[in-house]
Parts: sequence; C-alpha cells; structure tokens
Amino acid sequence: MAKKPKTAVTPTRAEDYPEWYQQVIKASDLAERSPVRGCMVIKPWGYSLWENIMRSMDDMFKQTGVKNAYFPLFIPLSFLEKEAEHVEGFAKECAVVTHHRLERGPDGGLVPAGVLAEPLVVRPTSETIIGDSFSKWVSSYRDLPILINQWANVVRWEMRTRIFLRTSEFLWQEGHTVHATEKEARERTRLMLDVYAREASEYLAMPVIKGCKTPSERFPGAVDTLCIEAMMQDRRALQAGTSHFLGQNFSRASGIRFQGADEIEQFAWTTSWGSSTRLIGGVIMIHGDDDGIIVPPRIAPAHVVLLPIIRKPEESEPVLDYVNRLAQELRDKRYHGRGLVVEIDNRDIGGARGWDWIKKGIPVRVEIGPRDIAKDSVFVGRRDRSHKDKRNMVRDQFVGGIVGILDEIQTALYERARIYRDEHTVTIDDKGAFYRYFTPDDLEKPEIHGGFALSHWCGSAECEEKLKDDLSVTIRCIPFEGEFGHSAETGRCIVCEEKSAQRVVYAKAY
Amino acid sequence: MAKKPKTAVTPTRAEDYPEWYQQVIKASDLAERSPVRGCMVIKPWGYSLWENIMRSMDDMFKQTGVKNAYFPLFIPLSFLEKEAEHVEGFAKECAVVTHHRLERGPDGGLVPAGVLAEPLVVRPTSETIIGDSFSKWVSSYRDLPILINQWANVVRWEMRTRIFLRTSEFLWQEGHTVHATEKEARERTRLMLDVYAREASEYLAMPVIKGCKTPSERFPGAVDTLCIEAMMQDRRALQAGTSHFLGQNFSRASGIRFQGADEIEQFAWTTSWGSSTRLIGGVIMIHGDDDGIIVPPRIAPAHVVLLPIIRKPEESEPVLDYVNRLAQELRDKRYHGRGLVVEIDNRDIGGARGWDWIKKGIPVRVEIGPRDIAKDSVFVGRRDRSHKDKRNMVRDQFVGGIVGILDEIQTALYERARIYRDEHTVTIDDKGAFYRYFTPDDLEKPEIHGGFALSHWCGSAECEEKLKDDLSVTIRCIPFEGEFGHSAETGRCIVCEEKSAQRVVYAKAY
Repeated sequence: MAKKPKTAVTPTRAEDYPEWYQQVIKASDLAERSPVRGCMVIKPWGYSLWENIMRSMDDMFKQTGVKNAYFPLFIPLSFLEKEAEHVEGFAKECAVVTHHRLERGPDGGLVPAGVLAEPLVVRPTSETIIGDSFSKWVSSYRDLPILINQWANVVRWEMRTRIFLRTSEFLWQEGHTVHATEKEARERTRLMLDVYAREASEYLAMPVIKGCKTPSERFPGAVDTLCIEAMMQDRRALQAGTSHFLGQNFSRASGIRFQGADEIEQFAWTTSWGSSTRLIGGVIMIHGDDDGIIVPPRIAPAHVVLLPIIRKPEESEPVLDYVNRLAQELRDKRYHGRGLVVEIDNRDIGGARGWDWIKKGIPVRVEIGPRDIAKDSVFVGRRDRSHKDKRNMVRDQFVGGIVGILDEIQTALYERARIYRDEHTVTIDDKGAFYRYFTPDDLEKPEIHGGFALSHWCGSAECEEKLKDDLSVTIRCIPFEGEFGHSAETGRCIVCEEKSAQRVVYAKAY
Repeated sequence: MAKKPKTAVTPTRAEDYPEWYQQVIKASDLAERSPVRGCMVIKPWGYSLWENIMRSMDDMFKQTGVKNAYFPLFIPLSFLEKEAEHVEGFAKECAVVTHHRLERGPDGGLVPAGVLAEPLVVRPTSETIIGDSFSKWVSSYRDLPILINQWANVVRWEMRTRIFLRTSEFLWQEGHTVHATEKEARERTRLMLDVYAREASEYLAMPVIKGCKTPSERFPGAVDTLCIEAMMQDRRALQAGTSHFLGQNFSRASGIRFQGADEIEQFAWTTSWGSSTRLIGGVIMIHGDDDGIIVPPRIAPAHVVLLPIIRKPEESEPVLDYVNRLAQELRDKRYHGRGLVVEIDNRDIGGARGWDWIKKGIPVRVEIGPRDIAKDSVFVGRRDRSHKDKRNMVRDQFVGGIVGILDEIQTALYERARIYRDEHTVTIDDKGAFYRYFTPDDLEKPEIHGGFALSHWCGSAECEEKLKDDLSVTIRCIPFEGEFGHSAETGRCIVCEEKSAQRVVYAKAY
C-alpha cells in the first residue's frame, strides 16, 4: 500500500474539498467564525489581504473618476419599499432594528426598549438610501455624472453561511453612479466590470469570464447584471463581482430627476456595482493546495519571510545581524506600488516555523544559517513550488532578483488557474452527456467533478429551473463577444431542444 | 453705520457660532444630514479628509506593531452584560436588532418577522465582542502582546445629534491590546495617546493638551482614561481622542487568561483607544473662518486648484494647455508621503468658482490667464490669508516652492490655533472670577465666551457636579507632567476650598 503523502492540511482537497476549505482557513489564520450567528472575525493576515485588495481597486476606481463617500448603515423600511422587485429580493434576509435602548426587565435582565416609530433595516445594499441623497444632489444635467463608491459593511441574514463566501455580515465596496443617458450608464456598467476583471486577473491571479446574467440571476431591480465568473479547484464557479445597469428603475423609485440641456425634466439612469470579502474566499479556493493557502504576491500581506537558522547561542548575533541587513535591503525595494513587506521569524519552535509560513501562503521563504552566510548565499523556497523544492541563491542575486521572482510567482499562479479552468471547460450538445458531466460518481460523498459546460440555452426560465432542480447547475453567464466561452453559433437548447442564439456557461456555483 | 463685511458664510462665527458650524459644513460640501435620525452622509470632500486622517493614523499605528482586523457589527446582549459598568454606560443608547426578516403584514405593508432568540446590539464599541476572540487567542505569555485595531462604523443612539460631533452612527478606529503586565498595558495606553497627539498636532494642525480624565468622565469599565483636548474657536473644548487602561476588568469579563513564564495562570491586562470622524468636526471648528473651512495641507483632499481665466474663445486652447502642463508638473511632486493633488476647475460660473474653493478650504488657489502666461507668472491665493491677498509669482518659483508654501500654511494654522488657545487660557483661583469667566454677557444669545481655566480641584465628584450644574463646565483633563496647563503646585479647590494637589483644565465642552 502506497504511503499517504504528508500534507499540512487535513483533509486534502481531493478527500473533502468543503472541509479542506474550512481547515485551510484555520491553518492560515485568515479568519474564524464568531459567536454571532453567521458573522466572521477577519484576523490580521486575512484583513491585510483585504487591505491590499481595497487599495488596488480603490486606485482603479479613482482613475475612472469615482470618489468615495459614506452613507448611513440604516435604511428606513419605507425606503426599501420604493422599488418593488428590490424589496422582494432582500426582505427575507434583513436584520431589523426595532429599539434604541436597553432597560432592566422585571427579572433584572436587559430587554430592548424605546420602540422606533419606523423599523430600520441594516443595509443589505444601499441603492435606496443613496438614491435619496442623489435625488437632492441632482437637478440639472450639469450635475451629472455622479460617480460615487463606498467601502462598507453590509448585512444579509443568510440561512446557510460559509466563511468569506456567504456570511451574515461582510465587507464590500458598492459603487453607485448617475448619468444623463442610457448609453453613458451602460458604458459605466461595463467599465466597472472591466475594473473587476482587471483586479481579478492582475491582482488575484484569477482568470475570469466576463458576461451577463440571465434574468433569473439578476440583481433585484436591475435591468441588466454583468458579472465575472471564475472556476475554483472543485470546478464550481464563483461570481467574483457584479455590475448592474439599473435603467431608470431606481431613479423613479427615489425621484432622481434632472433638467436636460433641452430644459426637459427627465429621470436619470443609474448603475451600481459591488465586490466583497468573498474575493478572499475565491483566492483561497483557486490557489490553495494541501499545504495551505497561496497568496498572489501583488496582494500578499507580506512578500518574504526570513528564517534565521541558529543552532548554537554564539551564532545568534552574526546570523541576526546578517538577516536584519538583508531585510533592510529588501524593504527598500518596491513591488507594484508598495514597499516590499519582509517578515523576520526568529521563533524557536523547530520545523513548525517554516510550516506556519507555508500554510499562510507567503510567496517566498528564505532560510539563513551560518553556512549560508559563509558562502554569502541564501536558501530560497517559493510557495508556488513544492515545499521540498528549495534552492541556494547567491545573496546579491536574490536581492537583485526578488521582484522578478515575485512576478514569476504571480504569473505562475494565474497560468495554473487558467489551464485548470480550460482543462475543465467542455462543449456539450447532448443532454445525456450534460447530465453525466454534472453527476458525481458517488452521490453520498463530496467529490470534485464537473466544470464549465458550454452548451446552448433557448432563453426560457423553465429550462434554467429544470437544470437547477435536477443538477444544481445554473447559467453562470452569457459570455460577451470575444470572451472565453463565447460562441455566436446558433444551436439547440440543451434541455428543450428549442432554438438557441449562443452558448452559455453552465456550472455548479458558490 | 459701518458696512457689514461680506463673508461667504452666514452667519459669521461671532454672530452665531453653532449655526455658523452648520452652514460652513453645507458651504464646504463636507457632509449632510440624512433622513435617518441622527445619521450623516459624508460627501466626497469630507470623506477624502477622513481617508487622509485614516492613512496617516494607520501608518503610525502600524509603526508601533499594531495590525488591523475586523470583528462583527453585532454584539449579543449577553456579551454586553459581562462588564457591569460598561453595559450601564451604553444601555441607554443602543440600536437593537430583534428580527431577521421582513414579511407582508395583514394590510400588505412590510413588518419585521423572524424574531431572534437573543437580541443583538449594533456595536457602540467592541470591547466585549473582541474580548471574546482574545479569550480564544491567548493561552500563554508567548501569545502576548496582542495589538489589534479595527476601522469600523459604530452606533450610539444619541438624543441630541450634531453632524460630525455627535451622530447616531459614526466612523472610527478602535484599538484593542492585551498584555502580560500592568506596566506594559499602561505604557501602551500612553503610547497610543501620544500617537493621537501627533495626529492632532502634525496632521490636523490642532494643538492639544494631554492628560487623564477624572473618574466621572472615564470610559465605562476603564480604570483610567487618557485624553487629548483641543480648544475650538468658541473656546469650548473638544475631546479629540481617548486611550483607556482597562486593567483586568475586561479580561475578567471575557475570560482572557494566560499562563505566565512561571506557569501560573492569570488574567491579562487590556487597553482600548479610539478616535473618530468627530476629528473632522474639530478641524472645521479650530481652523474655519467666515469664508468657509480651511483644511490643513497634510490632510487636504486636494492641495492646489488651478483656475484658468478664459475671456475669449481663442484663449481657451493656449490657457488650458499651459494649465495642464502646470498641473502635471505639480502632480509629479510629493507632499508628506503622497502625490500632490491638483484640481483644475474650468467651470464657466464666474466669481462663484473661486468662492467655491475658498469655502471648501483648499490650501492654494492659482489663477492663470493669458496675461499671466505672457509674463510666465501665476496669481496665487493662500487659504490661510485673506481672500483679497493674492500675489503674482514667477511660474517656476511657484512650482519649486509649492511644497514649502504648503508647509508654511500647515505651520501657520497650527500657530494661529495655539496662540488662540493660549490667549484664552487663564489661571483662576477666585470662585467669583471663575463663575464670571464662564458666564456669557447675554444669556439669551449664543455668544463666544470663557476658555480654559486652570484652577484647583479637591478630587471630589460633588465639586465637579456642581460646576456642571451651575455652569455646564467640566474638568477636561488633569494635564500630564510637562504638559501645557500642568502645575504641580498645591492649592485650594475652586468650589469647596479643600486642599488640591494640582490645577486641572476646566472648560465647557462638546
């Protein structure tokens, strides 16, 4: 019997992917469940990932003219009601504030008191409360466009939660824009999707497909929802960002009117777009391996960890001196707009030290002991390679080459994910083959199976519904022209065999 | 009769300071009231101020080893109850979530549904929920210290709200640390106060007095509360940041125990420290004048606005070319760790354009027309000087000197505020004089009066209470040794004439 390979995380992805996900988050110290139902505590290593994601996205937003602002956490019930589809979409998962005080009850315990005249909903999204402000800010075409973003927490009382992917509270950004014309609003919707796609591919090393959602998967109240979709290592799709063209629905609901250059008063055209801490879940699932997570260098909380090897007390001073000088030289370098972040880990905990950093997914580990110093060399491990694959490098070559090494890792992660996705994307025209593709061998056991199926769709909600019921498969997107998976060829719907204008991306999804 | 001077903001500070505060916020487009009771909308110009405050503080926090994290918005009622003084301090102003769903009621309207088993409080501060995590993170002295900060929104259901100064929801940072010894925790409490003092003086151009609060003004549950206090232009004090030594109160409440090097299990020592969007209110009130706000260059959303002067259509191209090139040169410069932010305002709205920027408080305004270009000069106005005081500068001298100009403005604002405070700080030993000092001439009308009184205090809560009742005057702080206002001389309490160990700072306060 072959010996089971030792991995830092148990179970492995192949053994039990959902459980691996929970364990790898624990092992990498990214986050933990909180005692508050469905809410998470984002620990420093995880939060730093989020800070780097925020910084890179915020820069891109601002380059397109967007400015940040901040709107209230609470939404009066009456505001939420203004857009009919919108409120139906969120009513089932709203945290509702009904009291503004605590009092001692008859048994001495604290009880809610001070009933609010109108209940307040903790924002699940902010179209209606921001729309109210916009209605005051806009009166003439000269006030347009308005391009606003906010970084905030939102609450959606999900019944089944999963850390980072679906939590009752999460952190996100939500952009909201107002335009004088439909054309301009549609262009903005697309522009912001392109920003998300850039964030995913260039920073998260996450290849994505850009497309639009079917009506049943649209944001409640939107005319069109655009999205980016990525494949995780269990071959499920993750929606990594959405951008909504809201038409005039929300401007009618909130009364966002303006007088055009022609002096005619009209409703404005609005968009909204969001991405969240869910992206961290995506980074874990697309790059992680059985030894832990792997963080793409461009969003890494730290790029390099230096591990001094000290076996005798008298080695301590010269080794630490050498390590400190090396750290300083590395920290003087810049990598994609920020200084290189270098950690020195001098804990005396044996082999657990190196493994801690492997589990945390730091891009580069460097061991330095007296023998390395004597040769003026360092012993370098890269997280995109096996933990056994460590190599000697001349110290100055390492320092001179570190930025290149980080770029190589960034590219390698992207390519690995892209190849994996492409390998598990198939074109299927036969219904039986489609059903077999999405059916695991062992229905009792979690198992990695399926992938992206490029198949035809007639356009009916019924056919979507059937696949959802039968296989838990949904249409992730209708890919844009020129996008991966796009095909303008006509064909027959995979379910009903009615005419179809183009292939769409089917998958199981998070 | 003398003609009333024309000012951009009505009323002036002297006429009605509280109303001036509301109007100057409107005129500068910083923020506005929201339809949600007591909550504010922070508009882009205001939010950008906050972003710059966050960035500068965050850098300083990180330099002291603090890492950012994120904890749940909701606190179970039972958690809040764990520390007796703490819960009493916040019970009267808690927003309480009691339901997690909305349903259609009998009349078709939405009503809260899905009652929570345990009500959740929207965090007014996070000691108890973070303490719960800390209790899991700490088991040995090797796990200490823990140095955590979070940037977050908090809710305190205030009955009387005032934009930026006291709002139901506000943005803040709250730091929370855990230590093995009392000494270390006390040192951290002081270290973080020093960071706040640096932020205030070096970034906000706000001179502050560092000291500690009297027991009656302490944070609920704290052993000691340290604070920084600044004087506004109505001579009231603003508490601009607090740092709390919590002793073992919260570690007992949350069960934060560790095994020391001596293998004895003990409760840890904790601190917490916070500063908020209230700082923006302080910046407005300490520097603003009757023409609008004045933003200190180091936290300015933008440093320079270029105002092209175009009187004939054919001037447009050469003037805009010149302005764009100038903007690019300026943007290539760095000012205190970030690129110089330069706006170009080419709106055709006459004199309102220059006034808009004066009201917004941008440090430097530059007018550029064909005649300036012919002489290769620019016409420069500084916000720390009268709006009439504009000067010609040779273009290259301006570009070469802009960083120096900004530094001059930063220093001038600080010095002006310091002189104002010092001029309105008096030493009083006579009770009658003390009462007269804090009594306005006309009790019916808002009026700028009083200031900081350095007077003696016996240490009793009764004497504090009496001054609060009689004059609305409180002890702002007991200044640290070596601090402005500190005096170790003994004397007699200004109220009861009992012995007093040192003078304290008395003032009316926000």
